[in-house]
Amino acid sequence: MLQAPPAEPGMREDEIDTPALVIDLDAFEHNLDTMAALLAPTGAKLRAHTKTHKSPVIAKLQVARGAVGQCVQKVAEAEVLAWGGIQDVLVTNQIVSPRKLARLAALARIADVGLCADDEAQVVMAEQAAEAAGIRLKMLVEIDVGMARGGIEHGPPAVALAERIARSPHLIFGGLQAYYGTAQHIRAPAARAEAAQQAVTRTRRTIEQLKQRGLDCAIVGGGGTGTFQHEAASGVYTEIQGGSYVFMDVDYAKNEDGPPFRQSLFVATTVMSRAGQGIAVVDCGHKGVAVDCGMPGVWQRPGLRFAGASDEHGKIVVEDGATPALGERLRLVPGHCDPTVDRYDWYVGVRKGRVECLWPVAARGGMA
Amino acid sequence: MLQAPPAEPGMREDEIDTPALVIDLDAFEHNLDTMAALLAPTGAKLRAHTKTHKSPVIAKLQVARGAVGQCVQKVAEAEVLAWGGIQDVLVTNQIVSPRKLARLAALARIADVGLCADDEAQVVMAEQAAEAAGIRLKMLVEIDVGMARGGIEHGPPAVALAERIARSPHLIFGGLQAYYGTAQHIRAPAARAEAAQQAVTRTRRTIEQLKQRGLDCAIVGGGGTGTFQHEAASGVYTEIQGGSYVFMDVDYAKNEDGPPFRQSLFVATTVMSRAGQGIAVVDCGHKGVAVDCGMPGVWQRPGLRFAGASDEHGKIVVEDGATPALGERLRLVPGHCDPTVDRYDWYVGVRKGRVECLWPVAARGGMA
Repeated sequence: MLQAPPAEPGMREDEIDTPALVIDLDAFEHNLDTMAALLAPTGAKLRAHTKTHKSPVIAKLQVARGAVGQCVQKVAEAEVLAWGGIQDVLVTNQIVSPRKLARLAALARIADVGLCADDEAQVVMAEQAAEAAGIRLKMLVEIDVGMARGGIEHGPPAVALAERIARSPHLIFGGLQAYYGTAQHIRAPAARAEAAQQAVTRTRRTIEQLKQRGLDCAIVGGGGTGTFQHEAASGVYTEIQGGSYVFMDVDYAKNEDGPPFRQSLFVATTVMSRAGQGIAVVDCGHKGVAVDCGMPGVWQRPGLRFAGASDEHGKIVVEDGATPALGERLRLVPGHCDPTVDRYDWYVGVRKGRVECLWPVAARGGMA
Repeated sequence: MLQAPPAEPGMREDEIDTPALVIDLDAFEHNLDTMAALLAPTGAKLRAHTKTHKSPVIAKLQVARGAVGQCVQKVAEAEVLAWGGIQDVLVTNQIVSPRKLARLAALARIADVGLCADDEAQVVMAEQAAEAAGIRLKMLVEIDVGMARGGIEHGPPAVALAERIARSPHLIFGGLQAYYGTAQHIRAPAARAEAAQQAVTRTRRTIEQLKQRGLDCAIVGGGGTGTFQHEAASGVYTEIQGGSYVFMDVDYAKNEDGPPFRQSLFVATTVMSRAGQGIAVVDCGHKGVAVDCGMPGVWQRPGLRFAGASDEHGKIVVEDGATPALGERLRLVPGHCDPTVDRYDWYVGVRKGRVECLWPVAARGGMA
């Protein structure tokens, strides 16, 4: 059952029903423009990651500023984007389910879709799905550039897998997926640069070996909000897969050289109890704001600390003696933006204290 | 956009699209029956907590086994239950939003609804909403019995607030809310019993003082899956607010005297990559299974350890050398059941390896 929207355009911000996912539109547009400006002089294009925003509306705003398309983690996200008019969608992930592959192949008739492999078995499955649907699927080889999660070993094993894809009449070899997720959150700039450099080196070596076998990489994708300036400047990556830059969160703010983006995503919450000594309880717990990367911050209220989250309650410790009033609104800064977005059905876009727009979080949810 | 269901009745369990929220129906029914049997000889009735299951279907199964109704944390949950035919719904929480109070008052025409207060300001707001809607709202006083989150001090402050409610022509004094959430998860049985006993003592004292002022408590509610046998035996509590007992999770399993319920809730997931040494990657990360109480377990596979969750990837460390196959299905045991349920739109009910039913998680989502 889709939730009713928590606001209407034209309302004052303090009339939004809480908890609600709020976008500060000025900061959000600043972030869109800043990423476009930073990538413009490099050889790399943006392929923004939908796993952050899960919204074809936001994807369109990114494409309008020069993004080549979107990447996604799941077929469900690819569907929502393709149905919402986004033309170029890459699943930066392996797919091993015949039902999911059939769904992806069906999308190939209305959009340019692709996926990744790190094992020949995935190639065989994709080939069968493409043949059954009568289309060709674009397939990239995912290499492990340091994260040790998915991805085949760079160099010869990756080249052999690419050749297997290229030989298939039902597939198109699309290039390399070379994402180093954990590097995004290395706090010290020098160590983060070193990790990004390792990804560049492994990727460059694999590209050269592919070229020796006559295989070109139309796409070399990777990079995120924490490292994208390294990958973009490398001359190796053609596409940057940043996602979080549109919103930001407490976790990214901990990078010592804070990325050049503004906090634009908030969870609006209301104080509903202040019966306890030195404590205010708000109507947002960990069902309303993700805590996998730590507790949220309280925006522009340094005397208030979000100390703990139950399912539906947040416990705020009042450190400066100024307990907020019952009914008072606070803005929380999510510890981690992607999973916080995934909790909600609606974005409420706010500018100058007024609700300007409502956008559905159209691709939310646990299903793949 | 509502997600398509990940399965159809009659399918084999291994055909369910993953990640998916799976109920083992035999274990689930065992849990429903066990709670009913344990409470039957006590003076207490079950008022099961919807915040766990968010489903009027499951609420009906609980009512059919003797539950007096449901409690909820949010007005959105109360709406879904009342619309789904549940007659008696208590919001075990404060409400300070006029819009939410108007929504709750509207429900009073189709169901028996109530809410809690720990401050006179909430009483005034509820009174105004009830008067505007032309109905009477039931209001309980929430007392702090040890959790230090919400709740007014027990004894005289609680009595004064109850008298204020009882004086209102638009409200009905409904009794006491006396829930000690953190006590549920105290690992050692003796320490947990002591915490529950403290809640009983504070509550009994307040009931006696209310009686001296001529106020009876129709409802004295509290207790959860970890402590309910203490509250039920106390002679003080009339209603037990257990929720998690229907599903269970890794966190409850850590209580040293494990509650008498079986694990019935799982997240079905699929191995999608095994390119890394000693690692299998599954298609369920922290967007698919809650990690606020720790990582999920891997059901009946002691050699596999769920070591880390990204947004959409779970990293499984293979400790016994037997790496699962690509495409192999695993059942994860959620670290915490309530927020895991909240990630999904559908339950898939399974019995003897076949899908038997699909139930919507009708009240899911961040909105209050």
